Amino acid sequence: MKIKDLGSEFKLLDKIKSLSKKINNNFISQIGDDCAIIDKTKEAGKYELKRNCKTSKTGNGKYELITTDILVEDNHFSMKFSTSFQIGAKAIECNVSDIASCGGLPRYCVISLVLPKDTTVKFLEGLYKGMNDACRKYNIDIVGGDTTSGAIIVINIAMFGEVEKDMLCRRSDAKVGDLILVTGCLGRSCSGLNLFLQGKEKLGETKYYLEPVARLNKAREIAKYVNAMIDISDGLASETRHICIMSDCGAVIYKDKIPIDKQTIKDAKTCGKDPYDYALSGGEDYELLFTLSKNDYNKHKHLFKDCFVVGEIVEKEKGIKLAEIINGKEVKKELGKGYEHF
Amino acid sequence: MKIKDLGSEFKLLDKIKSLSKKINNNFISQIGDDCAIIDKTKEAGKYELKRNCKTSKTGNGKYELITTDILVEDNHFSMKFSTSFQIGAKAIECNVSDIASCGGLPRYCVISLVLPKDTTVKFLEGLYKGMNDACRKYNIDIVGGDTTSGAIIVINIAMFGEVEKDMLCRRSDAKVGDLILVTGCLGRSCSGLNLFLQGKEKLGETKYYLEPVARLNKAREIAKYVNAMIDISDGLASETRHICIMSDCGAVIYKDKIPIDKQTIKDAKTCGKDPYDYALSGGEDYELLFTLSKNDYNKHKHLFKDCFVVGEIVEKEKGIKLAEIINGKEVKKELGKGYEHF
Repeated sequence: MKIKDLGSEFKLLDKIKSLSKKINNNFISQIGDDCAIIDKTKEAGKYELKRNCKTSKTGNGKYELITTDILVEDNHFSMKFSTSFQIGAKAIECNVSDIASCGGLPRYCVISLVLPKDTTVKFLEGLYKGMNDACRKYNIDIVGGDTTSGAIIVINIAMFGEVEKDMLCRRSDAKVGDLILVTGCLGRSCSGLNLFLQGKEKLGETKYYLEPVARLNKAREIAKYVNAMIDISDGLASETRHICIMSDCGAVIYKDKIPIDKQTIKDAKTCGKDPYDYALSGGEDYELLFTLSKNDYNKHKHLFKDCFVVGEIVEKEKGIKLAEIINGKEVKKELGKGYEHF
Repeated sequence: MKIKDLGSEFKLLDKIKSLSKKINNNFISQIGDDCAIIDKTKEAGKYELKRNCKTSKTGNGKYELITTDILVEDNHFSMKFSTSFQIGAKAIECNVSDIASCGGLPRYCVISLVLPKDTTVKFLEGLYKGMNDACRKYNIDIVGGDTTSGAIIVINIAMFGEVEKDMLCRRSDAKVGDLILVTGCLGRSCSGLNLFLQGKEKLGETKYYLEPVARLNKAREIAKYVNAMIDISDGLASETRHICIMSDCGAVIYKDKIPIDKQTIKDAKTCGKDPYDYALSGGEDYELLFTLSKNDYNKHKHLFKDCFVVGEIVEKEKGIKLAEIINGKEVKKELGKGYEHF
């Protein structure tokens, strides 16, 4: 059997989870979080992983966060559309976004590159300039890496950060009754990509595709009150599903509440596409999807005034649904799966 | 200009060093060590990198170590020669080897995979079994990762470890007068690869190519007394050169003292190759190359009885040389550059 025949990326993730053996701690079953979360106790050599325990947000001290993202030419980026500067910056931003979604702050990273032998020095310079500029913005140090040759460009970044124990956010902490919010308009990156793919990039807005920005500051503002959080890299549908699976609950997303920018609607029309497909399955928005109690939402409303309530966490039995008003009647259907890499 | 026109991998490394901008600390110029070495002080968010300072081996506490290696199909491994189990195990071993060369102990890792869509589930299972088995041996936890699709298989591992301050070994701490030693026979991995490339794998020894083993225990035994250390992944010539460049010194390697196994000599003959080329430029031996003072060597001789003295650190002006006795006379020539990835 081939991995593409497993049926979905969720099944592949299940497969990888089942293949990863625990050694020291009871955490491996939670592979699939945005970051590994590590509690380095004072005793030498003892690391306690905090993925499986339900944290109370009352602890003190900090957890270490580790995330890694591997970007492949013509899959995650295209040299036809993006400059090397933009590719470098985006590689940093998507890792910062993972740290942000855990409520943490990035600190340093290591960078591995696969470069074809005929890569130009100019490309390499642009790539590093993009990475350096993004790192400077977030005060991240590039502390090492590895470079080798290969047929296509591959960029792997492993990034390290930390989070105060009472700020830690995970995919697995959503509670029934929580509101589901997003930090900004969705589908903009996918819209930009579609403009490029159709050669219509001059007719619309492409900057959210070319130069996405991690929502680190917003994440830090809200982390204390959030239950579950994830960054939107594969579309609203996929990320909602991740939260539901890891939190063992269901969700309903209200289609008419999904924030989509007017420009995105216009550009989708230009491309003959449905902007809701962009938002639900598009990917690379790097906005944050999070859940919190109605009580916390009401108490700290000022923090969420630039966010959008898009749904609610419900009991697992109710499934993961997209609700839409059709002819004045609410119709619920299965929420899709988002962008599939395989 | 293309990166292959830079002339050598050392030049490419120089280029990357020059492109990596410092932000918080004075360490970036030392990119090129086997691991990033981090001193996490107690103040939140303050990381002090210890690459540029000359450590005295009298400190207490620990440094964090981070290393990353990116392995590309048909460059670092071939599915024609190796099983997926062997590929997985080797990916872990080569990272453990980097931690070992700094004198440290590995603790955990994150794994990024690029997999073609038609990768079999059996391959994935074998790969993880190989990684899990190697990790279990060293008590390393796999704490996370990323998986995506692409035309070729790429495996990136970022590994974290720690080292007691008085055990830290770096490339940059060799001293004039130090002996240069290696922990075992060289060229064996390259010899195995050449047997495969010539379809003669049944005629000789291939296990050192297929299943290399990091010298972690030996590294931990000797680290306290060692000045500079590096693991031999690109051949004796390349690693000697790295130590000399980073320690600002020269070296002489005595060709007749390079330990080469009888089987390697036999197998090189089978392939019509020079076994000294294997040892000097072959790569993937994962033995350790280290320097220490004659005084420490003599005082702790029992620790080094299974190691081989192959040369000596000399003044920078004397260059980096390979000395050979020809017709009873010592002839010195430039030491080559080892395996070049570009």
